[in-house]
Amino acid sequence: MRVVVPFAAETPKTRLASVLTEPERSAFARDMLADVLRAVVEAKREPTVVSTAPLDAADLALPDEVAAATSVEIDDRPLTPAVNARLPEREDDESVAVVMADLALATPDALADLFSTAADVAIAPGRGGGTNGLVVRHPDFRADYHGASYLDHREIARAADASLETIDSFRLATDVDEPSDLVEVLVHGTGRTADRLRAFGFELERATGRLQATRAGSDRTD
Amino acid sequence: MRVVVPFAAETPKTRLASVLTEPERSAFARDMLADVLRAVVEAKREPTVVSTAPLDAADLALPDEVAAATSVEIDDRPLTPAVNARLPEREDDESVAVVMADLALATPDALADLFSTAADVAIAPGRGGGTNGLVVRHPDFRADYHGASYLDHREIARAADASLETIDSFRLATDVDEPSDLVEVLVHGTGRTADRLRAFGFELERATGRLQATRAGSDRTD
Repeated sequence: MRVVVPFAAETPKTRLASVLTEPERSAFARDMLADVLRAVVEAKREPTVVSTAPLDAADLALPDEVAAATSVEIDDRPLTPAVNARLPEREDDESVAVVMADLALATPDALADLFSTAADVAIAPGRGGGTNGLVVRHPDFRADYHGASYLDHREIARAADASLETIDSFRLATDVDEPSDLVEVLVHGTGRTADRLRAFGFELERATGRLQATRAGSDRTD
Repeated sequence: MRVVVPFAAETPKTRLASVLTEPERSAFARDMLADVLRAVVEAKREPTVVSTAPLDAADLALPDEVAAATSVEIDDRPLTPAVNARLPEREDDESVAVVMADLALATPDALADLFSTAADVAIAPGRGGGTNGLVVRHPDFRADYHGASYLDHREIARAADASLETIDSFRLATDVDEPSDLVEVLVHGTGRTADRLRAFGFELERATGRLQATRAGSDRTD
């Protein structure tokens, strides 16, 4: 199985602009990528980062065994065509997994569940109807990440007569896109992303209802 | 194993007040409870609803096999003491599971994963640091649902020298408390709760980023 991790190198995480500066968002996005790559490697796979622009290896500062297992390809196309160019085209092509680069809570166990189904297509949905993890073993399936991609991908699998499995994982459902997602990193994260948030001054704050992440010296972020 | 489902019968779902009237919230909360009870019964357990006030069985309209397996106890104490009064007190007491009544996406499979661990304490975390599902097999563990209960429950288990397992489930992590949660019911729900939301006029709307749930004739709800 090939594992592809698409990465938007140049304008990362714009929906966090209300709480992080542009250089902070860039560093934060690279931490999340590094955490995802480490989880993929610990799940015994060799990830390929498909980046919209060249990546500085020093910025990623991957542990040696993760760096040794990781390759980088540059592809400046949007997400959907960049992914589709890498999906299986013939019955006997290698299966392909696509793992989003902002799954800061991904663990080797959760990824192994995604990678190990017997289905033609396996999807780990994200919150809000997204597709955070995808495994394709069927040559007629093509991705469409625009909009309600989880529902669209189910429909595309059905139309291709491909068997489908959905992976029920909170860790894989938690893509970190918006300020309200940061609390999950502080509660459940164990990698560099959580360390970075704490270094930025974020901490948990009790409020009515769910916990929130707040930044020292700032207004509440969600 | 005893399965307890606490239910706030009188003032349900106040954080949905911006999008649902009080009678609507009451009906919606009962639909979620009915969906949870059905999933528990399909997971081969007999749930006990611990309700803050008497429940009208007709309001719940449970299928016959669900109604036959379900009992109701009235307990007007707050959540934490009402739960703690039902946890195991001695080594050989029956284990107890506590499942929140607003897990509209709960499936028998997800609940079976929670119920079947070998740990002294098992937790299915909710978004924002909550505890959506809890299994207690250790006589020294007591619950504390106030605030960051997932982190507190981990700490309490450690202090009691109880082994701990965390259940990674998006379905169990999704308690439906706030308007932004409704989209998950529309995307993933298959029970009465999803039917009710559609009958109320909610539908999926594409926006930038995640899908949103909007109500016909209303402003955007999240």
